[in-house]
Amino acid sequence: MTKERIYLFDTTLRDGQQTPGVDFSVEDKIAIAAMLDEFGLDYVEGGYPGANPTDTAFFDKKRTQYARFVAFGMTKRAGVSASNDPGLAALLEARSDAVCLVAKSWNYHVRVALGCTDEENLESIRGSVKAVVAAGKEAMVDCEHFFDGYKDNPAYALACARAAYGAGARWVVLCDTNGGTQPPEVRDIVSAVIAAGIPGASLGIHAHNDTGQAVANSLAAVEAGARQIQGTLNGIGERCGNANLVTIIPTLLLKDSYSSRFECSIDRERLQGLTRLSHQFDELLNRSPDHQMPYVGASAFATKAGIHASALLKDPRTYEHVPPESVGNLRKVMVSDQGGRANFINALKLRGIVVSKDDPKLDRLIEIVKEREASGYAYEGADASFALLAQRTLGTLPELFHVDSFRVMVERRYDANGNLKTVSEAVVKVVVDGETMMSVAEGHGPVNALDLALRKDLGKYQGEIEDLELADYKVRILNGGTGAITRVLIESTDATGARWWTVGVSDNIIDASFQALMDSIVYKLLKNRGEAGRAAAE
Amino acid sequence: MTKERIYLFDTTLRDGQQTPGVDFSVEDKIAIAAMLDEFGLDYVEGGYPGANPTDTAFFDKKRTQYARFVAFGMTKRAGVSASNDPGLAALLEARSDAVCLVAKSWNYHVRVALGCTDEENLESIRGSVKAVVAAGKEAMVDCEHFFDGYKDNPAYALACARAAYGAGARWVVLCDTNGGTQPPEVRDIVSAVIAAGIPGASLGIHAHNDTGQAVANSLAAVEAGARQIQGTLNGIGERCGNANLVTIIPTLLLKDSYSSRFECSIDRERLQGLTRLSHQFDELLNRSPDHQMPYVGASAFATKAGIHASALLKDPRTYEHVPPESVGNLRKVMVSDQGGRANFINALKLRGIVVSKDDPKLDRLIEIVKEREASGYAYEGADASFALLAQRTLGTLPELFHVDSFRVMVERRYDANGNLKTVSEAVVKVVVDGETMMSVAEGHGPVNALDLALRKDLGKYQGEIEDLELADYKVRILNGGTGAITRVLIESTDATGARWWTVGVSDNIIDASFQALMDSIVYKLLKNRGEAGRAAAE
Repeated sequence: MTKERIYLFDTTLRDGQQTPGVDFSVEDKIAIAAMLDEFGLDYVEGGYPGANPTDTAFFDKKRTQYARFVAFGMTKRAGVSASNDPGLAALLEARSDAVCLVAKSWNYHVRVALGCTDEENLESIRGSVKAVVAAGKEAMVDCEHFFDGYKDNPAYALACARAAYGAGARWVVLCDTNGGTQPPEVRDIVSAVIAAGIPGASLGIHAHNDTGQAVANSLAAVEAGARQIQGTLNGIGERCGNANLVTIIPTLLLKDSYSSRFECSIDRERLQGLTRLSHQFDELLNRSPDHQMPYVGASAFATKAGIHASALLKDPRTYEHVPPESVGNLRKVMVSDQGGRANFINALKLRGIVVSKDDPKLDRLIEIVKEREASGYAYEGADASFALLAQRTLGTLPELFHVDSFRVMVERRYDANGNLKTVSEAVVKVVVDGETMMSVAEGHGPVNALDLALRKDLGKYQGEIEDLELADYKVRILNGGTGAITRVLIESTDATGARWWTVGVSDNIIDASFQALMDSIVYKLLKNRGEAGRAAAE
Repeated sequence: MTKERIYLFDTTLRDGQQTPGVDFSVEDKIAIAAMLDEFGLDYVEGGYPGANPTDTAFFDKKRTQYARFVAFGMTKRAGVSASNDPGLAALLEARSDAVCLVAKSWNYHVRVALGCTDEENLESIRGSVKAVVAAGKEAMVDCEHFFDGYKDNPAYALACARAAYGAGARWVVLCDTNGGTQPPEVRDIVSAVIAAGIPGASLGIHAHNDTGQAVANSLAAVEAGARQIQGTLNGIGERCGNANLVTIIPTLLLKDSYSSRFECSIDRERLQGLTRLSHQFDELLNRSPDHQMPYVGASAFATKAGIHASALLKDPRTYEHVPPESVGNLRKVMVSDQGGRANFINALKLRGIVVSKDDPKLDRLIEIVKEREASGYAYEGADASFALLAQRTLGTLPELFHVDSFRVMVERRYDANGNLKTVSEAVVKVVVDGETMMSVAEGHGPVNALDLALRKDLGKYQGEIEDLELADYKVRILNGGTGAITRVLIESTDATGARWWTVGVSDNIIDASFQALMDSIVYKLLKNRGEAGRAAAE
């Protein structure tokens, strides 16, 4: 049986921008667009050119190679022709393959928000779509508040959808803008739209999660005949979020209800990159990952129950709804020495550290890692620190240098001219081959000062670390408030282009930063000697 | 039309116990049971007496006044009579109104996990249910893995359900233990069970969130005729969580799809306590609240989009799927650099700061806010800092005190015993009414030390800030790497229970923290004078 195609439309960079606490820079958008493009989505909606400087700059180039690059904006204003509407003009100038126009489809909004007549709104839709088509781009229309509009005035909502379709839109997207529609209503209304003459193959669904059913609503729309799903990475979006593509994609691919009838641009091989995609996105935005996120969360395949653990390992199929590897995730059995040990040896092997399963130091290492992870270390995000910890515990780490002491000072005061200034200074005592070097440095802040002082004079190793650079620095406070633990992650890079992550944890942010900086330097020195294993991405 | 009753069954204290990172003490359980009882749920499942000491102790008293108190446990073992099974005996001894027995309903599990025959398992179900009924308690049976079992061997799954019902169980609960069932499958299978002779009025649904559809599956089961929903507070539970009762209850009450046909033990008045219940639960477990949780999250009714904000304030109904007050939540219009002048004035108004639209200082304020937001300040997350900035710019902020200078030092060295220790010390010079106070303090880290030193001696204001507490501290690095800007957000609280957020931005984390700490203290002093506007959530 030929499967029907479901099209995946990502609006992380447009609707996702409305997420509280999220603000994409142009660089962020470029990086995310590349991630989405590489993963294989059909459409990447980049933002709203003309609405703000960031988005306008983002659209001065096409930012995807494979996915259709989409610019979003409003239909033309009433009383102005398509060619005379500056907003529409900005949209058409943008370097995109497609244009997604948001249109009112609830006549109440037409009256109150637009202040024009019902017919003028329809004309705006038609005129704008035609202009997009004439410009040689793919046209799609987001029918805003469609479901609420349909419930209030079905004839008008349908008229808006028809106006879009009739004018040449490739897609008419039905938006549950307020997020309150229920799955049975979505099924009924999508069916009604199809019965009114717009083929399901031209219908899209844009759901919000205000009653926790954005995923269910998206799938319900597909059940009723729609063939495009709009969503975001990790379900980001305003209020309660958009439909989570990271949940929808594996469900389409791995659940019989859908996989028997549908296919999409992502195949099972690409699907294995899903967990990494989700984590990379959180890292980029410095967002706390949701450990309980379906499929990709750290706890998605973690079981506590002692009863299940042994049965689970005998036949995971009976306790897991899908194999964790299918989405690039891992099974975690939290109560089981047996399973834990084998996983650990594999984890070390993957990093180029070979250890025999009978090595007594292995138990010690497993214990230390568990203790540390319980107190906040995140080794899964800091491969280089993990490799160093392993080598240190297994006794294979050479002692290259050590730090005797350090002192960091930040002072804010008025200078001689009466201007407020802040000065950060660090003093470090390093011991190399029995010789003590004392260095001082100033920096933008305490961590920068400490980093510079640490790397200022490492004796005979100095030449080796000239090309070492701190590329990224992330801080997360765990447990909040006054009992807070600080976790610092540092990304380092060198002239070879290698990048590696190190971690430090303490209730003192300077201390935590110091640990991560030290690991970064030691790792660099080992790497130079070919002894670092494979924790660096080259 | 008479409405049908939906029964709400809370398993926070039993299945919720499987949540990674959650471990209830007896005291925790008593407190939570009281919260659930007071809120008005029908059933409170307290745990597994006999399985561990905490649960056994918890069941030595009935812990609810209104709700039926439920003890959970396994059906008797094969080959042993009900009266001779110690596990079952412990269950019956527990001081509960009802007993919920978990039974295998997938014959694969019967074979592999129980190691008995299909018929022996059915006999265990019957015998155990009869024993519960004979003991004068309400019997219910959780049919474990029911949906997967039904897909694999429908006849056996139904036989298990019938055995439970026929032996006198008040409820037969169909469990999606692996969490992978899809809503259409739930509808079909629940319908099949009803067609096979078990009335919907005796059927319950126990869904898990492994494909993000626990809520949708629960409602789909009700659509098909089930009348009991099992879930947890805030959706806690193993892996991806259980069905979230905090999402389900308002959906049942406020959405026509259900409210027209069903009623439950919670009425609209009680529903207004929902947000508080959800937050209290997070507080008790010291869990970070999910700001994007449907209905009750801090962002559930927060809008950023400048375009919507003015329309929203005109007629909230058209932009909100339910009124926030209906669930005890609040509407938030966030300050955003995308906002226009009208939005700004409204944002100030909502915070109790009245300014005329012709006030020339208003332009200056808007400019400052935009500049600052462009450089990293996030006023939407820091109402108190926004209120202070506004008052300062509009000239209405009294100068209460100022900080002349501060110095923060972190030192790590070996102490006299050869142990590595880190010491953090801060010195602050504060000027109050022309008098200079100099204070020193030590802390866990540089920010803690600075906070303590700042609040150590504020002269005549000292008594006023005794109850000021730092509740949460968040750090975010913007732009990454060496050119990084640090944004610090601090949440403060005081004896009145008010909570407010302040922000600081600098390339120096100590400096950024200082700004946020200062705003926190100034805000507290203004609040004491009734001059702080309404940036605190009480």
